[in-house]
Amino acid sequence: MAAQTNRRELAHPSRVEIRLEDVLHALSDPQRLRIVCEVAREAEGLTCSQVGLPVAKSTLTHHFRVLRECGVVQQVYRGTAKMNRLRREDLEVLFPGLLDGVLRAARAQAGRGAG
Amino acid sequence: MAAQTNRRELAHPSRVEIRLEDVLHALSDPQRLRIVCEVAREAEGLTCSQVGLPVAKSTLTHHFRVLRECGVVQQVYRGTAKMNRLRREDLEVLFPGLLDGVLRAARAQAGRGAG
Repeated sequence: MAAQTNRRELAHPSRVEIRLEDVLHALSDPQRLRIVCEVAREAEGLTCSQVGLPVAKSTLTHHFRVLRECGVVQQVYRGTAKMNRLRREDLEVLFPGLLDGVLRAARAQAGRGAG
Repeated sequence: MAAQTNRRELAHPSRVEIRLEDVLHALSDPQRLRIVCEVAREAEGLTCSQVGLPVAKSTLTHHFRVLRECGVVQQVYRGTAKMNRLRREDLEVLFPGLLDGVLRAARAQAGRGAG
């Protein structure tokens, strides 16, 4: 059972492998920024399909993969679905205040009716 | 004389035209991130050639143009040189804490010897 779990583990960068440039690049896409804002609202995490974004499933899968591979999101299988959580602690240790700053900025922009 | 100044004015987005995604994208390039960190250290601004980055002049010019066009940097001619300053006030009003968060994160990463 442990072996089965391991086979289904997705690759994540370790904390020290997370690079600021990759995080900023991942967040510079408007759709990924929206995804991150949605995931941030749910401490328990969201499955990919729970994110209310009007894009193709394959597009969503791609965006989540980019977010996982740069270290913004942790993805674990729950049954056949992938559960997504922000790597808040890792990001906060590496880049204090950055994630919250970006989330606040994204909401401020959306609030101005331009996002 | 005013006309001459106007002809040499460079195009900048107004404050309301600045988009978070564009700012994050501009900052997601390692060289541009270094440029921004350098410019941030000089309240009076820096000319392009004062930025100590070992890249071709044309590359530096390109990076500064990207930073100007997304609203991170203000460029004004001083003689034949372009003087660059961060648009701190505009960015702070739009996205409170974001720029400082990114600068802090960039320095933290560089301090870990990985930047």
